[in-house]
Amino acid sequence: MYKPVKISDLPCEAPQGLKKNDVEKEREEMADAIGEMQRLLYAEAKRSLLVIFQGMDAAGKDGTAGAVFRWCVPHGISAYSFKKPTPLELAHDFLWRAHVHTPEKGYIKIFNRSYYEDVLIQRVHRWFPEEHFELRFKAINAFEELLSFDAHTTIIKFFLNISEKRQGEKLRERLVNPKKQWKHNAGDWEERKHWGTYMACYEDVINKSVIPWHVIPADDEWYRNYCATKVVYDTLKAMDPQRPVLSAPRHD
Amino acid sequence: MYKPVKISDLPCEAPQGLKKNDVEKEREEMADAIGEMQRLLYAEAKRSLLVIFQGMDAAGKDGTAGAVFRWCVPHGISAYSFKKPTPLELAHDFLWRAHVHTPEKGYIKIFNRSYYEDVLIQRVHRWFPEEHFELRFKAINAFEELLSFDAHTTIIKFFLNISEKRQGEKLRERLVNPKKQWKHNAGDWEERKHWGTYMACYEDVINKSVIPWHVIPADDEWYRNYCATKVVYDTLKAMDPQRPVLSAPRHD
Repeated sequence: MYKPVKISDLPCEAPQGLKKNDVEKEREEMADAIGEMQRLLYAEAKRSLLVIFQGMDAAGKDGTAGAVFRWCVPHGISAYSFKKPTPLELAHDFLWRAHVHTPEKGYIKIFNRSYYEDVLIQRVHRWFPEEHFELRFKAINAFEELLSFDAHTTIIKFFLNISEKRQGEKLRERLVNPKKQWKHNAGDWEERKHWGTYMACYEDVINKSVIPWHVIPADDEWYRNYCATKVVYDTLKAMDPQRPVLSAPRHD
Repeated sequence: MYKPVKISDLPCEAPQGLKKNDVEKEREEMADAIGEMQRLLYAEAKRSLLVIFQGMDAAGKDGTAGAVFRWCVPHGISAYSFKKPTPLELAHDFLWRAHVHTPEKGYIKIFNRSYYEDVLIQRVHRWFPEEHFELRFKAINAFEELLSFDAHTTIIKFFLNISEKRQGEKLRERLVNPKKQWKHNAGDWEERKHWGTYMACYEDVINKSVIPWHVIPADDEWYRNYCATKVVYDTLKAMDPQRPVLSAPRHD
């Protein structure tokens, strides 16, 4: 029987006893292989990969993407960050601004946040009645199915599971560390007050998705990066992209 | 019980006995009112109208749109013609290129052809297996539902029902009339050979759509324009767009 996910049952930390050094070599080898496979995906130009990062502020969305795709080449990968919607975006359906940024064949696209914000922050703050979010969940599943069958896009969805305590430490560090002050945003402290509601909405996102989520423990950066790298590595390995060979007669 | 549409049962000509002069005044008044209501829709800026024109070559897609929206102002209306997909468009799912052109709130958008081509010409020529088109029908219905509930877009779909005989006359006229030669396209004669298959595919489009189609007799231009004008007029009348009034205190 299908058992709904409870986020509070899922770990935020690395397994006890495991150390960074235990996984570092494997992580590096996988990141290396991801770079190789990205070149093949680009050369093949038949399929694409969309990688969605969701999580509370300071969960490490950009940091994880940077580590996982460390050895990819820029001509076949790009990232798009979903900010507060513009007036033009709000004058369209909620998937409008996301659709234009979906990857073309041969490409990897990273979404830092995504259309899931429209069933998260907007739901936490009750900007629409509950029925509207039900329709959005249905629309999201149809949209992801469309990308899958018609554009041959593989979709990986990460929820970076940081604990409330660890987020507090990281937000406070942004206040005092000169290198991190540029990341500070007073709004993050406001959203933090709604932690419980956010977790309930994330649970619903995870439980209502047809394409499954990967819930990644995010309190320890090294373990978070290791887990995300492994998911992407396994996915690309299974996709097994192939460099095309000449089908025309050779001149030799 | 639901009865599937058979296109061959539906008229291509104006009803016998009816003359252009009988409907001309009403058509003109409705076109005028459409212009008025477009200004209100724009001022209201809460909803939008998407009008899709499909039909065989020379059925009169641009001509009908020109007549129906004769008195609209350009800042609130625009048309997009779907041509042969570009390589970049083909590197995405089939709805990608359509989504970006959907209307923002307050606007009327005209689609001359549309994403329905991807279940028409592509199906006639068997570019994908049949199952793929089934998935596309599902995706189209989900897409139109998304526009409806999340962007408050009303969608009007016209199939301009021209007869094979009348199309032949119009295509031949393009060969000899210097004013119409620019419209001539050798490919139209090729597609005409698949008339029966096109009609079968159009029937499927009409019968599988959740949002209904308006099948317009298109052999007589004046009657075609009258019918399409009436559908748009009735739709805008029912939408009843309102010019906003000042809610702030007046200074007088």
